[in-house]
Amino acid sequence: MARVVVDVMLKPEILDPQGQAVANALPRLGVSDVASVRIGRRIEIEFTGEPDLDRAREIADKLLANPVIEDYEVRLGEQPESADKSS
Amino acid sequence: MARVVVDVMLKPEILDPQGQAVANALPRLGVSDVASVRIGRRIEIEFTGEPDLDRAREIADKLLANPVIEDYEVRLGEQPESADKSS
Amino acid sequence: MARVVVDVMLKPEILDPQGQAVANALPRLGVSDVASVRIGRRIEIEFTGEPDLDRAREIADKLLANPVIEDYEVRLGEQPESADKSS
Amino acid sequence: MARVVVDVMLKPEILDPQGQAVANALPRLGVSDVASVRIGRRIEIEFTGEPDLDRAREIADKLLANPVIEDYEVRLGEQPESADKSS
Repeated sequence: MARVVVDVMLKPEILDPQGQAVANALPRLGVSDVASVRIGRRIEIEFTGEPDLDRAREIADKLLANPVIEDYEVRLGEQPESADKSS
Repeated sequence: MARVVVDVMLKPEILDPQGQAVANALPRLGVSDVASVRIGRRIEIEFTGEPDLDRAREIADKLLANPVIEDYEVRLGEQPESADKSS
Repeated sequence: MARVVVDVMLKPEILDPQGQAVANALPRLGVSDVASVRIGRRIEIEFTGEPDLDRAREIADKLLANPVIEDYEVRLGEQPESADKSS
Repeated sequence: MARVVVDVMLKPEILDPQGQAVANALPRLGVSDVASVRIGRRIEIEFTGEPDLDRAREIADKLLANPVIEDYEVRLGEQPESADKSS
């Protein structure tokens, strides 16, 4: 099994009101050194065999992101938790 | 400016119907070697000064993730796009 | 064409940190009479023929909601915007 | 306590890949009479006193929706579950 990660974020010029809400809530936690918060999506795709970045890009284009308002990035992920971490 | 990234995913034992929908749609794209798709959130926090991982963890605990159903991971992010990439 | 609307909300006993963030940001807007904010999903399903509430429930069960942590409600929607609104 | 509901949907001309994924997954459930699926957000705001639609609109404008890509609708909600439903 091999994991591919797709990060999808609104384009920088598109307002993100949910991130804005988090940023506006920070002073009440005593946090004053945060300039901005942006909330996007992280998608983990597990391939049964070899990880396929081209396939993942095609999936992102059609089912995960709207290229008019969002940017995405596809990359090999760390191994799934089920991987043997010992020895 | 320094970026901290918070990745929030549903715990592995919690069903993710939105990811399931994407997985179920893949055969129509001719994709048959994907075992699972999980959809979470990626949050980018820009600090005005030094990046503060402890602060980011506190923000995640209170405003970004529900620890009963979600796991999160906090890490230093790559530099924001506005960084000078030349030279 | 007929629309069915599925409203999906986290169960009341499940913490909603994104709604909490919005609630915490309200005092800065001068709003002090809000007790809570909860953020869920609204899904609009357009049927080509008769609206089918049983079908919509099946879709919700399998692809839209996680019944362990979410409640959903299925109902006939108002007519899509494409409907002729003039008399 | 009084509930105001804010429904936020992507504008009709904006592609919704998550809804598209659900629509594409339907044939595998044996569903063939769905023309489209759109996924938006439903926000429930509980006011401590009188429900305030103008306030809710201001909150939606600033913290819940991005008016460039989303439409929203504000309306009085049904009573919260905590309301006495008997007699």
